[in-house]
Amino acid sequence: MPELRRDLITQKWIITGMRSKEKFLESLNPFQKKTTNGCFFCEKNEKNTLPEIYAIRKPGTQPDTPGWQVRVVPSKAAAFKIEGDIGKEGHGIYDLMNNIGAHELIVETPQHVKNICDLPIEQIVLVLKVYQIRLRDLDNDDRLRYGLIFKNQRPKSPYRIGHSHSQFAALPLTPKILKEELTSSREYFAYKERCLFCDIIRQEQRDVKRIIEENADYISFVPFATKFPFELFILPKKHNADYCAENESSLKNLAQILKASLGKISVALNDPPLNYVLHTIPYMRKKQGYWETIHNDFHWHIEVYPQMTETMGFESGSGFHIQPLLPEICAEILRDAK
Amino acid sequence: MPELRRDLITQKWIITGMRSKEKFLESLNPFQKKTTNGCFFCEKNEKNTLPEIYAIRKPGTQPDTPGWQVRVVPSKAAAFKIEGDIGKEGHGIYDLMNNIGAHELIVETPQHVKNICDLPIEQIVLVLKVYQIRLRDLDNDDRLRYGLIFKNQRPKSPYRIGHSHSQFAALPLTPKILKEELTSSREYFAYKERCLFCDIIRQEQRDVKRIIEENADYISFVPFATKFPFELFILPKKHNADYCAENESSLKNLAQILKASLGKISVALNDPPLNYVLHTIPYMRKKQGYWETIHNDFHWHIEVYPQMTETMGFESGSGFHIQPLLPEICAEILRDAK
Repeated sequence: MPELRRDLITQKWIITGMRSKEKFLESLNPFQKKTTNGCFFCEKNEKNTLPEIYAIRKPGTQPDTPGWQVRVVPSKAAAFKIEGDIGKEGHGIYDLMNNIGAHELIVETPQHVKNICDLPIEQIVLVLKVYQIRLRDLDNDDRLRYGLIFKNQRPKSPYRIGHSHSQFAALPLTPKILKEELTSSREYFAYKERCLFCDIIRQEQRDVKRIIEENADYISFVPFATKFPFELFILPKKHNADYCAENESSLKNLAQILKASLGKISVALNDPPLNYVLHTIPYMRKKQGYWETIHNDFHWHIEVYPQMTETMGFESGSGFHIQPLLPEICAEILRDAK
Repeated sequence: MPELRRDLITQKWIITGMRSKEKFLESLNPFQKKTTNGCFFCEKNEKNTLPEIYAIRKPGTQPDTPGWQVRVVPSKAAAFKIEGDIGKEGHGIYDLMNNIGAHELIVETPQHVKNICDLPIEQIVLVLKVYQIRLRDLDNDDRLRYGLIFKNQRPKSPYRIGHSHSQFAALPLTPKILKEELTSSREYFAYKERCLFCDIIRQEQRDVKRIIEENADYISFVPFATKFPFELFILPKKHNADYCAENESSLKNLAQILKASLGKISVALNDPPLNYVLHTIPYMRKKQGYWETIHNDFHWHIEVYPQMTETMGFESGSGFHIQPLLPEICAEILRDAK
C-alpha cells in the first residue's frame, strides 16, 4: 500500500500511504485521544510489539522477553517492507517506486524514560552501538542506498512515543538533503582541498561564541546560518565520513556530548519536542568507484532540531528561512542552561 | 542588526537577528503572553502601525486614517531595510550580506476577519491586486532579486496576527526553493519542449482524484507527491510565468478558487493555521538575457501548507518527507468538506 513518489518540481522522493482515512479522521477528534494502556516499549510489555529484530540482552534470556538493554522492533506503521523489488514505474508524467526498505524502532531503555539525555552515558553508548549494528546490517542489501537514523523525541506526548526511542529507515534512495550535502562538500573539497566540515569546525573554534559543548573527540555548536532557532550540530573533530567507523572510546565521548547538549536544550527551552538525524555516507557510495573521494570530502555528523512551535513551518510559508534569533544568542541561551 | 547569512552546507541564505534575547526569553514564559489591547490592524487603529506605504482607500481620505479597504504598512519586526548597499562580505569561511530589501504587511480588511476565505470575493480581488502593485513597485530596485508574497494565517492566535494579512518581502536574492523550481522547469522544458506545470495540470485533469476545485482560469489540487498532508497547489490553467501579468477577470477567478479551496481546508481540518506562498518569476530574470526562456518554462502558482501539528517538523528529523496520508485521500477529505 505505501509507495514512494517523486515530486517533479523539487525532485524529492516522498513516502506516502501508510495511514487510512478512518485513522486520520479519528485523530482529528480531540475526544478520541487517549493514553494507550501501558507503554508498549517498557520492559515486560515485549509481546505488544512486533517480534524483535535485534536486542542487546542478558545472556540466556529469550527474544521478546525481559532482560534487554536496547531493543529493535519493526515499526507497526512501517513505511517500508523488505520483500520484493524496487519496481520503478511511471504514472503518466509521474514517477513511482515500491517501498522496499526497512523501518525499525530502536527502544533505548527498558525503563519509561522520555528523553535520551536522561539516560546514563553507558546506556547511550549502547544505543549508539546499535545504530552502527543496524546500519551495517542493511548495508548488505544491494537494493538499498541509504541508512537513516533519526529521532522524534516527544517528552510530553501521552502516547508510547513518549518512551525514548530512535528510528532507523533503510531507503532505496539517498534523500535529496543528503545528496545536496555530498555535492556541497565535494565541490568545496575540489576547490579548497580541505573538508568543508573540518573547516567549519576550525572556524567555530576560532569564533568560540556558537560552541555549546566540546570534548576530546566531539564539538557541538549552533551553526553560523541556522535554519531553525536552537538548531545544533554535533561533529567528530577528527575527519571521518562514516559513522560506523567510530570506535568504542569515540562513542563514549559522543554519548557524553549528546547527553550534555540535549540536556541543555531540555533545560533552556522547557523540554521541547525535538528531532535529530544522523548524516553519514550513503550505502551506494562504498560500492561505486566514482564515489571514491567520499572519505575525503564528507564528514558524518548529527543535526538536532528542537521544535519551537511559534517558528515552525515558516519556511514552507515563505520559501525562505527567517530565523529571528541570532545563532550566537541561541548558543548563549543554551550554554547558560543550568 | 539583522543580516543575511549563507549556510555553506545547504547553500541556503537565511535572515537572522531581528529579535533580542530578552524578547525571546519573555516569549518562553507562558504567563507573559497577553492579548494586545485591541488589534493594530483594525480600522481606527491606524496610528498603532508604522506609516502606511500604500492603501486602496476612499477618495479624499488621508493616509493612516479610516476609509481604506486594503492597507500596506512596514513590518515593525522588519527583517529588511531599503537603505544601504548589498555589502557582500566574508567572515572567515562564511558568507554574509546586508539585509537590503523590504518587509511589508498587507492588511487584507479593515474588519477583524481572521481567515482570508471569510472575505467576500471582491475584497480578495483587491488583495490580489495589491500583491501585483507591491511586486511591481519593488521590481524597480536593481538591488533586489525576488519579490516574495506569503501568508501565515493563524486564526486561533490571540495576537493581532489573527487579523487576516499577508506579507511581502523583497529580497536581494532568489530563495533556493525557487531556484530549484526554475531549474527543474527549465530542464523539463529543454527535454520535452513543454511546460512542466502545464503537463502537471493535464495529468491532474486526467487523474481527477486529486483535484479540489476548478474554474474557467484556475485549478487547485493536492500534488501527486505531497511533502505535507493537505498541501495544495493553485495554478492558472493558461500558461503564464508572471503573476503580475494576470488581468482583472483572471484575478476574480483566482479569488474565487482561493476562497473555495482555503474554505475547504478550514472546514475539513478544524480551522488550522496555514501558510501560503506565491511562486512567480524572479526580478532579475526579466533583466538578464540568458534567462530569456523563462516565460516558456516557468509557470506561476500558489502553494498552500496547512499546519497539522503532529506531522510538522518531520522532514528536519528524517531528512526525508514521510507523509502517511495518500494525496488522493487528502483530496477526498477536502472535497467532501461542507
